Amino acid sequence: MRSPLFDKVVLVGVGLMGSSLGMNLVARSLAREVVGVGRQRRNLKEALRRKAIHRAVPAAQAKALFRSLTSRDLVVLALPVRGILAYLKILSGPCLVTDVGSTKSTILRMAEARGLRFVGGHPIAGTERSGAAAGEMDLYQNRTVLIVPAKQARPGDVQRIMRLWKLCGSRVLRMDGREHDRLLAVVSHLPHVAAYALAKTLRDSLPLATIWKFFFTSLRDTTRVAASPEDMWSDIFLENRAALLPLIRRLEKNIQSLRQAMEARQTVSLRAFLARARDFRRKLESGR
Amino acid sequence: MRSPLFDKVVLVGVGLMGSSLGMNLVARSLAREVVGVGRQRRNLKEALRRKAIHRAVPAAQAKALFRSLTSRDLVVLALPVRGILAYLKILSGPCLVTDVGSTKSTILRMAEARGLRFVGGHPIAGTERSGAAAGEMDLYQNRTVLIVPAKQARPGDVQRIMRLWKLCGSRVLRMDGREHDRLLAVVSHLPHVAAYALAKTLRDSLPLATIWKFFFTSLRDTTRVAASPEDMWSDIFLENRAALLPLIRRLEKNIQSLRQAMEARQTVSLRAFLARARDFRRKLESGR
Repeated sequence: MRSPLFDKVVLVGVGLMGSSLGMNLVARSLAREVVGVGRQRRNLKEALRRKAIHRAVPAAQAKALFRSLTSRDLVVLALPVRGILAYLKILSGPCLVTDVGSTKSTILRMAEARGLRFVGGHPIAGTERSGAAAGEMDLYQNRTVLIVPAKQARPGDVQRIMRLWKLCGSRVLRMDGREHDRLLAVVSHLPHVAAYALAKTLRDSLPLATIWKFFFTSLRDTTRVAASPEDMWSDIFLENRAALLPLIRRLEKNIQSLRQAMEARQTVSLRAFLARARDFRRKLESGR
Repeated sequence: MRSPLFDKVVLVGVGLMGSSLGMNLVARSLAREVVGVGRQRRNLKEALRRKAIHRAVPAAQAKALFRSLTSRDLVVLALPVRGILAYLKILSGPCLVTDVGSTKSTILRMAEARGLRFVGGHPIAGTERSGAAAGEMDLYQNRTVLIVPAKQARPGDVQRIMRLWKLCGSRVLRMDGREHDRLLAVVSHLPHVAAYALAKTLRDSLPLATIWKFFFTSLRDTTRVAASPEDMWSDIFLENRAALLPLIRRLEKNIQSLRQAMEARQTVSLRAFLARARDFRRKLESGR
């Protein structure tokens, strides 16, 4: 039998992301012990029941637990960005630390300032559901995990975090924090801004009961991600303001151009605008 | 055997919508003869091959064909709105006329002004594909068709058009032209505007090859309908300007509010905005 990747893994947060990782750690014997840290007793119980952790520790005792860790141990901060930052402030010692945060610049700055052995991770996975009860063994299967190491990270540590995710069935891709945040602003955060703003506009325009009767696929798809938790996404938007704000301004300009072309009945420029968008979207789908 | 609903049905346009309707007319014997009118010989041939029509007539001979029709015949204008308007100008006589157009106010005004026996239809169905080759028997199965009669329409004619769509497996719902266009502006046209503007913004922000590697579900869903034909959608946007422009302005204001809350780091109002959108979207999905 292969020896496990880590001695002890402390999962801080046993929600959807943490418990799904825990189920892989336990089932694949990637650690000798998996310890869950959380604030909600019910969620910790559910994580135990679903074999996502071997042992539960209340959040109040996390500091003592961290002090007991060695260089063969791993802490996974499976929390929203705000929670990750709070834990980075109280972590120290020789253990390796990783996270699942959706933005990376601030997290890396904090981890580097505190001199932690930090290799960030961002699994591109998730559903609209949350909590340990939503955890699933296959959540990371065939997904991409972006690996974003701190400046001082050792190559061996980067390799171990990559290995961890590959063993969960994911592809891994290494990039730096700034690159990560700019990329995510385009491919994920801006689409979420658009979906939230559109959903809010529709909500203000017709009664829910009417819209519900005409819940067509165009409406369904364009607003789907607006069902995501608002606390998580307000954090992401604020954390990634620097990359996101110029893109939002560009989106505003584009909507304005479309509107002005309609107001002036400029059929040619309206079509040209739509054709560029259509061409881009079709190429994306066909993979060219 | 039940007698057919119509004597002769003339399908003007044998693209996705027309040929799918034709396949139902032929297979279910809803008319004694189904005649296809089109400009592209290849498409007419394909419609014949797929048994969407019994006979093909080139568009140049449409006028003569219309003159031969009686009160037991039906003309279906299965074209984009611009094409429907062009045919309404040359149609006359005792036959019943319907269409599949995505906007209704202008079409109804024209049909009423010309004194036609007109009952408009708007099947809420379609795919990103087009042409007779994309036609399918099941396109209208379990879909909604909005029925929008002209002012002078007789109850019996409204019933026959409803019956036609019900026999294709659709639900029917009657409304007036103004109501139709306002509703569609909210549940379909505005989502399309948002998708086109977002796709255009993404296209201008990163190389296609990069975005393609990170073609996540949020990006995929929010922009999916931007792959729709730009000529059809520029027509719809221009036709429905009156209802659509105030909604676009409202969308612009909402995006601006989101951006300003981020710029000023107003966490509370940012969350409140996202929560309203999220609440609306979840209720839509759960059907409450």
